[in-house]
Amino acid sequence: MSSAIGQNLQRVDGQEKVTGKGVYTGDLRLPGMVYGKVLRSPFPHARIRRIDASRAESLPGVVAVLTRDNLRVASPVHGAYVKDQPIVALEKTRYSGDLVAAVAAVDEAAAEEALKRIDVEYEELPAVFTVEEAIKEGAPLVHEKLEGLKSAEYGTGGSHIVHENSNILLHFRYQRGDVEKAFQEADFIFEDTFFYPSAQHYPLEPHVSVASFEGESLTVWTSTQSPFSVRQELARVFGVPFSRVRVIVPYVGGGYGAKSGIKTEALAGCLSRLAGRPVRVAFSADETFKTICQPKAKLTIKTGVNRDGAFVARRCEVYLNGGAYANSGPSVTEKAGYRAHGPYRIPHVLTDSYHVYTNTVPGGAFRGFGGPQAAFAYESHLDMIAHRLNMDPVKLRMKNLLDRGEEYAAGDTPMDCDLKDGLKQVAEAVGWGKEAKDPAEPASGSRVRRGKGIACGVKDGGGTNKPANAMVKILSDGSVLLSSGSVEIGQGMRTAFLQIVAQELSVPPQQIQMAELDTQYTPFDKGTNASSATAVMGQAVQRAARHAREQLLAAAACLLETQPSEVELNDGKVFFKGKSLSFRDAMRRYAETEGEIVGRGFFKVPRNKNVPLGYTSPFWEVGLGAAEVEVDEMTGAVRIVKYISLTDAGKMIHPLQCRGQDEGAALFGMGLSLSEEILYENGEMLNPNLVDYRLPRFRDLPESFHTYIREEGGGPGPYGSKGMGEGGILAVAPAICNAVYDATGVRIREVPLRGEKVWTAVAKGKDFEGPDSG
Amino acid sequence: MSSAIGQNLQRVDGQEKVTGKGVYTGDLRLPGMVYGKVLRSPFPHARIRRIDASRAESLPGVVAVLTRDNLRVASPVHGAYVKDQPIVALEKTRYSGDLVAAVAAVDEAAAEEALKRIDVEYEELPAVFTVEEAIKEGAPLVHEKLEGLKSAEYGTGGSHIVHENSNILLHFRYQRGDVEKAFQEADFIFEDTFFYPSAQHYPLEPHVSVASFEGESLTVWTSTQSPFSVRQELARVFGVPFSRVRVIVPYVGGGYGAKSGIKTEALAGCLSRLAGRPVRVAFSADETFKTICQPKAKLTIKTGVNRDGAFVARRCEVYLNGGAYANSGPSVTEKAGYRAHGPYRIPHVLTDSYHVYTNTVPGGAFRGFGGPQAAFAYESHLDMIAHRLNMDPVKLRMKNLLDRGEEYAAGDTPMDCDLKDGLKQVAEAVGWGKEAKDPAEPASGSRVRRGKGIACGVKDGGGTNKPANAMVKILSDGSVLLSSGSVEIGQGMRTAFLQIVAQELSVPPQQIQMAELDTQYTPFDKGTNASSATAVMGQAVQRAARHAREQLLAAAACLLETQPSEVELNDGKVFFKGKSLSFRDAMRRYAETEGEIVGRGFFKVPRNKNVPLGYTSPFWEVGLGAAEVEVDEMTGAVRIVKYISLTDAGKMIHPLQCRGQDEGAALFGMGLSLSEEILYENGEMLNPNLVDYRLPRFRDLPESFHTYIREEGGGPGPYGSKGMGEGGILAVAPAICNAVYDATGVRIREVPLRGEKVWTAVAKGKDFEGPDSG
Repeated sequence: MSSAIGQNLQRVDGQEKVTGKGVYTGDLRLPGMVYGKVLRSPFPHARIRRIDASRAESLPGVVAVLTRDNLRVASPVHGAYVKDQPIVALEKTRYSGDLVAAVAAVDEAAAEEALKRIDVEYEELPAVFTVEEAIKEGAPLVHEKLEGLKSAEYGTGGSHIVHENSNILLHFRYQRGDVEKAFQEADFIFEDTFFYPSAQHYPLEPHVSVASFEGESLTVWTSTQSPFSVRQELARVFGVPFSRVRVIVPYVGGGYGAKSGIKTEALAGCLSRLAGRPVRVAFSADETFKTICQPKAKLTIKTGVNRDGAFVARRCEVYLNGGAYANSGPSVTEKAGYRAHGPYRIPHVLTDSYHVYTNTVPGGAFRGFGGPQAAFAYESHLDMIAHRLNMDPVKLRMKNLLDRGEEYAAGDTPMDCDLKDGLKQVAEAVGWGKEAKDPAEPASGSRVRRGKGIACGVKDGGGTNKPANAMVKILSDGSVLLSSGSVEIGQGMRTAFLQIVAQELSVPPQQIQMAELDTQYTPFDKGTNASSATAVMGQAVQRAARHAREQLLAAAACLLETQPSEVELNDGKVFFKGKSLSFRDAMRRYAETEGEIVGRGFFKVPRNKNVPLGYTSPFWEVGLGAAEVEVDEMTGAVRIVKYISLTDAGKMIHPLQCRGQDEGAALFGMGLSLSEEILYENGEMLNPNLVDYRLPRFRDLPESFHTYIREEGGGPGPYGSKGMGEGGILAVAPAICNAVYDATGVRIREVPLRGEKVWTAVAKGKDFEGPDSG
Repeated sequence: MSSAIGQNLQRVDGQEKVTGKGVYTGDLRLPGMVYGKVLRSPFPHARIRRIDASRAESLPGVVAVLTRDNLRVASPVHGAYVKDQPIVALEKTRYSGDLVAAVAAVDEAAAEEALKRIDVEYEELPAVFTVEEAIKEGAPLVHEKLEGLKSAEYGTGGSHIVHENSNILLHFRYQRGDVEKAFQEADFIFEDTFFYPSAQHYPLEPHVSVASFEGESLTVWTSTQSPFSVRQELARVFGVPFSRVRVIVPYVGGGYGAKSGIKTEALAGCLSRLAGRPVRVAFSADETFKTICQPKAKLTIKTGVNRDGAFVARRCEVYLNGGAYANSGPSVTEKAGYRAHGPYRIPHVLTDSYHVYTNTVPGGAFRGFGGPQAAFAYESHLDMIAHRLNMDPVKLRMKNLLDRGEEYAAGDTPMDCDLKDGLKQVAEAVGWGKEAKDPAEPASGSRVRRGKGIACGVKDGGGTNKPANAMVKILSDGSVLLSSGSVEIGQGMRTAFLQIVAQELSVPPQQIQMAELDTQYTPFDKGTNASSATAVMGQAVQRAARHAREQLLAAAACLLETQPSEVELNDGKVFFKGKSLSFRDAMRRYAETEGEIVGRGFFKVPRNKNVPLGYTSPFWEVGLGAAEVEVDEMTGAVRIVKYISLTDAGKMIHPLQCRGQDEGAALFGMGLSLSEEILYENGEMLNPNLVDYRLPRFRDLPESFHTYIREEGGGPGPYGSKGMGEGGILAVAPAICNAVYDATGVRIREVPLRGEKVWTAVAKGKDFEGPDSG
C-alpha cells in the first residue's frame, strides 16, 4: 500500500460540515430542554448591594433564575490557574459585561424578558482599565483577597515572584548570565517599546453548552478545547466525583484558545440543577466579545550589541493586561516572557513578565499564546537596530540566529529547524535587496509608497507536560475505531490521526472511524491547544495503533502457524510466505477469544526541573515572513501586496491541511496587524460586534500570498512531524511594520496599523511611539 | 473496611427507577424523530403477489414507507444462528403477524392510518402449525431454501444431524454408552411423554428502538440483552463496518431472553435511512406476543431401571415448535437436549432434540432456555417411576442423584452443588413423609384435596464460551468508573458489579459509577443471558478492578517510597507503616503522568472439544422445589398452598437480589405451571393480550413461599459465586404436578394446569395424557 502519510486525503469531517449535517453543540435539542440567558454588569467595577429576582421568577415560562443568593455549589468560583471567577457575581462585578445573574426559560424570548426584571442595586467602585493604572501605588484592587500563584523556582532561570496586595497576579522572571554587566560592556545599547492589541478570537461558533443534571450526575455537551479540564472544574464546582461528570464534545466551530476552561458550562449546570431540566446556554457573538479576549500587551526590549552586530545582552519587560479574571493568562504571561528574547544567540538575558488584573474583559489563551506579541517586539526592535547600525536586517539576523541544534535556553530542546536557511528562502522569495518600486501615482493623486520587511519568530510548541492517551480498537470484522481526547476544532486533526492509524495498520483511512469524545470513555487528555494534536497526541495515537498491530499480528501468526515476527502487514492484509489473511480473517481467532483488539498508546513530555518552564519544549514552532506593502500617504491605509510565510512542519501528514493552517495563521496575523483591536471608553467596550471590530475579509488578502512549509523531519511527532498552526502569526506584524518603515521611513510601534495612526506618523515624519497608556 | 460482598446495598438503579427518572429507550426523543409502525400479515402462510404503498406514501405526515420493494440493504435477512428472518417480508409471510411493511410518520396516529392504506395482494398457502404437521412426509415447507445448521461433531456424544428439504432446522444428538443394549438388560423400562406450553416472556417494556442513520453511520438506542450481537447483525444487514454501527443501551425493562438479537433495530434503521431522520419503533405489548415466544415442547423419556431403583439407561426425544424463524431456537434445542436426562447417574443415554419450523410465532430464548421443559419431563417421569416401583420419590432421587464433584457428562464441569443435601432440605421444609391433610370441606361443598410434590433440576449455566471484557478506571480525583457490556435488565447486575469493584479496591460502592453501555466504547461482550452476568462477566470485572488496584498500589508505593508489595489497601486508603494516602492523593502521581488508571479484565470459558457442547459449562444452575397444593375437585382449580424453592448461589454478592431472582424465577415457573399458555386456532393466536393470557398475579402467590439459597462456594465467579436467576423455574412444574398426583391420584402430563384439564382428569380418574397434537 502506498503511504497514507503526506496524502491529501479528503477530510473525514468535510462532507458532514459542508452539507450542514455535522452536529455542533448548538444543534442539540434534548427533551424538556430550556434556554438560558445571562444578565451582565453595566459597570466596570461595582459592589452588588442587593439582587431581587422575584419579578423575573414570576414571569410565565421562566423555570429558574440563578443569582448569588441561590448559587448552592461546593465552590462558587472557577479558573484554570487561580479560582478567581465566580459563576455569577458574588460581592461585586469586575468588568462591564461581567456575569450577574442567569435565567432559564422555555424559550429565549421569555428568558430575555426575564433578565429585564431582575432588579440589581449596584454601588459603583473606582476602576482600573490599563496596566499603568492598575500597577500604580494605591490603585483600586480588582481582587481584594486572592491567593496569587505560588512562588516557584523552575530551575535554570525561571521563577515566579509574588506581589502581595497588588493587581499583579503573576510575575514571571527568566534570566541567564549577567545582563547589567554585559550592558556595561556592550558597544551599543538600544531600547524600544511596543504595543500589541487586545483582540477577539472570533470562532464562528460562539460559546455554547447544554447541561443536564440528573440526581448527582451531570452531563454537559459543550464547545470546548479542554473537555477533561472542564470535567475537573465542574466536579470541583459542584462537589461531585469526576466520575459523575460527563463532558461530551460534538464538533467545535473553532477555538483559537477561547474555548479553554469553563465558559458556559458551569452556568448551564447550575441552571439545569435549579430547573430540573436540560438547559442550553448559548452566548451570542457579541457576548463572546465580553467573555474572553487576547490580553493587550506592552513590551520593552533593550539590547546590548557589539560593533559587529552580535547581540550580547537583552532585557525584556512584558506587561499583559489580563482583564478581570485570570483564565489562562498566567500561563500566557510565562510563555510571553520565555519567548521575549527571540531565537537569537544572546549570552545574557533578563526578562520580567507581568500578568496584571484590570476592570476589562478577561484575557487568556489566544492563538500564538504570547508569541506574536513577543515576536512583534523583538523583530521590530531588530529592524530598528539594523537601521541604526546601518546594517542589512537580514544580515543582522544571520549574524545572531540560532543554528539548528543550538539551545534556545540551557537544557531545553535544541532548535529543530534551520532558521537561517528559512530566512534565505523568504528573503529570496520577496526579492530582498531589490528595492520595492512605488507604483505609478494613482488617479486620486495620492502618493503610494512600497516597502519590504522581513521577520522571524519561534515559539516553544506543544504545550505543557501533559499526558496524552489514545486507544485503537480493531473490531471483529477488521474495522477500526480510534478514541482520543483531542478535539476536532476545525484544524483537521481527525483526518491526520486516521492517516497515522492507517499507516501503522496498513488499512485505508476510510476503514477507520473516530469515536465520539466523551470523558466517561475517551482516554484522558489535557486539552487541544499549543499546536499539540499531531505532535503530542499523535504520538499516543501512533503507539496505540502499533500496540493493536502487535496483537493483530500475533493472532494472525497463530492462524498461519508461524511467529509474529514472520508475518507482514500490507494493503490491509497479513502476509506470510505468499499466504495472506484479511483483517477480518485475522480477527477470527481474536473475536472468538477476546472479541476485539484494544491497543493503547501513551505519550508525555518529560518533566525537567532544569529548564525554565519545568519541562522541555516538545518542539519549536517556526514562523518566518516577508511582506511587501503599499502605504497610501493620503489616507495612511496599508495594503499587503505580497506576503510570504514560511514554517517547518517536520513532516506533513496532510499537506493541504498544513497549508490551510499556515495560511490561516498568517491571516490571523494580518487581522491583528491591520485592523483588529478591542477598544474601550471608560471601561466600556466600544466595538463588541463585527461592524465595529474589523476581521480581515477576503479582499484584505495580499495579491500574492504564498506559504512555504519545510519538512526538516526534526519533530517529535509521528514520522518527524511538528505542530504548526500558530507559527504563521509570529512574523506578520513585524514583517509588515518593517515594510512600512521601508516604504515611509517611519516606525509604527503599535499594531494594528489603522489609517489615522499611519497617516499621522507619515504626515509628521515621526515614529508612532504608542498610545498614551498601555 | 467491612466486606462489600454479601451486603444488601441499596440498588444503584433503584431510586431512579422507582421515581420514574430512569431513562429507558422509549423515553428518548431526538430532534426530528418520527414514529414507526408495522403492518403484519393476516395469514399464517401466504405468498405476496404485490404491494402497493402509494396510497400510504401520499398521506400527509408520512415520511417513509418500507416494503420489500425499497428494502435496499446488503442482506435483507437476519438471525442469530441462521439468517432466515427478513426485515420485512420478501416472497412470502410465514406466520400470522409476520412483518410485511412499515411506515414512519410524524406521529403514531398518522403512521397507523398509513398502514391501512398499504395494499397487499396475498396468495394463501397451506400451513403447518404443530410439530406433527410439520414433520409429516410432504408437509409444506416453511422455508423452501435455507442452509440448515451445518453438521457438527462436538466430540464426546454431541452432534448435529442435517435434515434436507424438511421443516427440521436442527437435530441435535447426545449419546453415551449403549442405550439399546442397556434397555435389554434393565429390569424395568418406563416411557412417558410430556408437553410444555408456548409462552410469552412479557417483559414490562416491550421491544423498542430509536435509530438514527447519518451518512453511512448508524446509531441505535435499543432495549436489548445483546448489544454487540445487534451491532454485528446491523453491520451485516446494512453492509457497513462494525465501527460505523453504534448500539447504546439505556435501562432495559426486562428481557427474559426475548431481547436477544434483532427485534425492532433493523426496521428502525431502514426507516431512518429512508426518512433521513431518527425513527422510533416501539412495539405494543400485544405486538410483542407476535414477535417472540417460548417454543412449545414435546418430550418423551424412556428409562431403564433396575429393581433397586438404579437408573441404567435413558432415551429422550425432544421436539421444539420453533415457529417461523429460528432466533436462538437452535441453541435452545441443543440445550434442551443436553439437559433432558437430568442430574442423575445414568450410564447409557441417547437423546435426540429437534427444532422444527412451523407457521407460528417464532420461538427463541426464554428464561430457563430448555431447562424447565426438560425438568418437567424428567421429574414427572421420575415421580411416575417411583410410584410404579412403589418407592418413595425422594429415595429414588437419592439413589440416582449425582454427588457433588461427579460429572454430568464426561469431561464437563463436575457437579458443583450437593444436590442430595439440598433435596433433604426441601423435603424437610415441606414436611415430606407427613401426609398432606385435606382441609375441612369448604362452604361450596366442593371437595378439596391436598398433596405434596418434590422436584429437582439442574441446567448448565453461564452460556457459551463467550469472551467477557471489562474496564475499571480510577480517575485523578480517586473516583472510579466501571464499563462492562452486561446489560442492566432489572436483575441488579450493576449493583453486584459495583460491590465487586468496591471489594477489590476497598472503596465504598457509592464512589463507583457505571458508564453508559455503548458499543463504540464499552469493552466487548457477547450478551446478557444464561445467568452469566455475575459468574462470567463478574470475573472480568474483578480482574479489571485488580488490574487497576495493582497500578494504584504501584503509584502509591512510589509516593510512599516503598515497594507495591509493602502497601495495603483499606477503607479507600493506601497504608504503609502507619502512613496513609487517600485515593485522590495516591492518584496525584498518576494524574500527572498518565491522567488516569485504566484496569482491564478479561474472562472466557475455555473451549473444549471433548465435551458435548464444545465448551465446559461455567457452572451448574440448580433448582429444587417442594410444593403443597390444593386441588378443588369441583372446578379443577389448583392452588399452591406452600412452595419451597432451593438453589445454590455459590456465594451471594447481594443476598436480597439473589432472593429476588430466585423468587422471580419460581413465580415464572408458577405462571407456566398454572395459567400461561399461548393458544392458536388455525394459526391465529387467540390470546395475544393480558386479558386472555394469564400472567400470575399477587394473589396467585402461595400462602407460604420460601426460598433457600445455599452458598456452597463452588462457582467460578468472584468469591465462589454462580449465576442463579433461572434455577428457580426448573422444579416448579414437576413439583406441582407431582403434588397434584399426590392429592388426586391422577397425572397431568401437560402444563399449564388449567381447571378443565385437571377437572376432566380427576372426574374421569384418568391421567391427562396430553393434547391430540404437540
